[in-house]
Amino acid sequence: MTQGRDTAAGAPEHSGAVVISVDAMGGDLGPSAVVDGIARAWRADPALRFVVHGRESELTPLIAQHGLAGICTLRHAEGVVTMHDKPAQVMRRGSDTSMWSTVESVRTHEAAVAVSCGNTGALMAVSMLRLRKLPGVNRPAIASFWPSFNASGWNVMLDMGADVKADAPDLLTYGLMGASYARNALGLERPRVGLMNVGTEEHKGNAELRAAHELLSAAQERGGYEFIGFVEGNDLPSERVDVIVTDGFTGNVALKTGEGTAKMASRLLKEALTSSWLAKLGALLAMAALKRLSARIDPRRANGGVFLGLNGTVVKSHGSADATGVAAALNLAARLARSGFAERLAARVASAVPAGQDAPSGEASNESAK
Amino acid sequence: MTQGRDTAAGAPEHSGAVVISVDAMGGDLGPSAVVDGIARAWRADPALRFVVHGRESELTPLIAQHGLAGICTLRHAEGVVTMHDKPAQVMRRGSDTSMWSTVESVRTHEAAVAVSCGNTGALMAVSMLRLRKLPGVNRPAIASFWPSFNASGWNVMLDMGADVKADAPDLLTYGLMGASYARNALGLERPRVGLMNVGTEEHKGNAELRAAHELLSAAQERGGYEFIGFVEGNDLPSERVDVIVTDGFTGNVALKTGEGTAKMASRLLKEALTSSWLAKLGALLAMAALKRLSARIDPRRANGGVFLGLNGTVVKSHGSADATGVAAALNLAARLARSGFAERLAARVASAVPAGQDAPSGEASNESAK
Repeated sequence: MTQGRDTAAGAPEHSGAVVISVDAMGGDLGPSAVVDGIARAWRADPALRFVVHGRESELTPLIAQHGLAGICTLRHAEGVVTMHDKPAQVMRRGSDTSMWSTVESVRTHEAAVAVSCGNTGALMAVSMLRLRKLPGVNRPAIASFWPSFNASGWNVMLDMGADVKADAPDLLTYGLMGASYARNALGLERPRVGLMNVGTEEHKGNAELRAAHELLSAAQERGGYEFIGFVEGNDLPSERVDVIVTDGFTGNVALKTGEGTAKMASRLLKEALTSSWLAKLGALLAMAALKRLSARIDPRRANGGVFLGLNGTVVKSHGSADATGVAAALNLAARLARSGFAERLAARVASAVPAGQDAPSGEASNESAK
Repeated sequence: MTQGRDTAAGAPEHSGAVVISVDAMGGDLGPSAVVDGIARAWRADPALRFVVHGRESELTPLIAQHGLAGICTLRHAEGVVTMHDKPAQVMRRGSDTSMWSTVESVRTHEAAVAVSCGNTGALMAVSMLRLRKLPGVNRPAIASFWPSFNASGWNVMLDMGADVKADAPDLLTYGLMGASYARNALGLERPRVGLMNVGTEEHKGNAELRAAHELLSAAQERGGYEFIGFVEGNDLPSERVDVIVTDGFTGNVALKTGEGTAKMASRLLKEALTSSWLAKLGALLAMAALKRLSARIDPRRANGGVFLGLNGTVVKSHGSADATGVAAALNLAARLARSGFAERLAARVASAVPAGQDAPSGEASNESAK
């Protein structure tokens, strides 16, 4: 059942074929949404091939139903990681799970990139255990897209919650990795990097942030980015920055605050537009424009948090992703695989990190490793 | 020129008269917006009296123009704190400023509460220097309203940026102060308090947050609140919580992220509703409903971050507040003064904090004071 990359792909590399390892279990909507997502991603990009991990008895009929048998290699895994499983448990006893098996396919180079809708903490733990951190990376990070007024429509923000803390050298690494990600995923030649703070003046924030400001400023040339200094929460949708660097606690709170605010705005707008007959009629006339707006900010289009800083690329799809969301994560994974992102990121971190390490960062780095 | 509370008010205390000390300078729109705001607040609440601080030459004509001479005591101050002044400078050399003078009126009990649109950092520094911290409070906090689906329409969140860090005993104090604020400003008898984290499970977050979870849980009865445990960024507009406790860094990023997201949503909606003739016609029909929505979430209605943990109440109005925003901050200040908020808060902190201090918090508290 174990097949090499090219064989599983059934198409030569140079034609753009990409093999994606997919965890079919563990999402809130179950394997049917994942297999439906595979079908959609494949229709949009027929060079894609998949190694699909999970319970054979459930997956075989789903794959057949969507006519995907020719492009999917099924890998049976009995165990399923649930949203309630603790990462440490999964690391110790999770080797029979679809999540573990999904990451394993990237470790063995059977697939170029892994995608899972499962439990974020467990996926990061298994990914770190099996893929290991890149040389020069102390804390891996999760990068996400955020809707913005930039030409691409997106900013990149990291860390969104891989780790609850980050010291100055970690924040430098996030800047390097985030810039590399923006280059490969958004096609920006020289991304603008900003560091999240509670004010834009250089004296603001704590000592760690001021140290990170210096490190990020010094590494601009080697990192291939422009450092624009401190940014604030209201810069998330801004057109003056492409990559926003912060620790995983702050990033996670900001991500969820933004999601919560957008949901509230959408709910209030719906209430307003159904509050009277006149409003309903108005909404009907404006329907086409409102639908375009809704598509523009559809969070499913931005689905896919990418784990950065490992030997291999892992894309975390939202747990509640439907087929459209899963397809977006798979197409993002394919784009990263085709651009050779994993290798480029590794090279960028290796070339630029040492400059940070002989800065005041040595001590802080040791401290955080305790 | 120095007059006592009742004289300045020109009305006996029991009629609901309240004297508010107002910094007329330092806002982005200058003294005219502030004096206009005073006029609006007074029309809404004719028992209000004001001590107005700033340049006499600018203020006298404005006060006369609005017919406010009978209810305003003018206190001349030559200096103005700008948005670029550093807090430490203002503490050392700011005694001639309108901001300093505004806080001084609360210290001498000439006014019940102070309101300023000026530089937040400087206002906190001057307030701490002149009013001093309440016994039992290590770090004062700034509390703000956040639009929510609760019956009142608001949640309270703190700290919004008084200090970039907070340890477990500080977070307990924020919970006590935030609950007291929600009781007095929103009329909630037993507010529900949540602690911001990156997950709602008890094992999530760092050690400081887990310690704060224990302290907040143990102090529920004495604090007069219900502790609902950890909340996440998407709970900010939620109806399951009234008071959200977090450190000033996270709170400030969340506040600005929410503001930025709401502004983006509003800008995109405007673009959508002007993108075609049909959409414009639809918007016209739905205009009344959209205006009600806009009023419902108007950030000016929630204007006023309150400094908690000092001997006296200081309300920080948004720097860019117009007359409507200033009036909202003044009316909030009046509500707090009438409820005897400053005394109630002090009593609540004094009665409940010692229980926290003999918990594992002692060490952390010493550490943070270094």
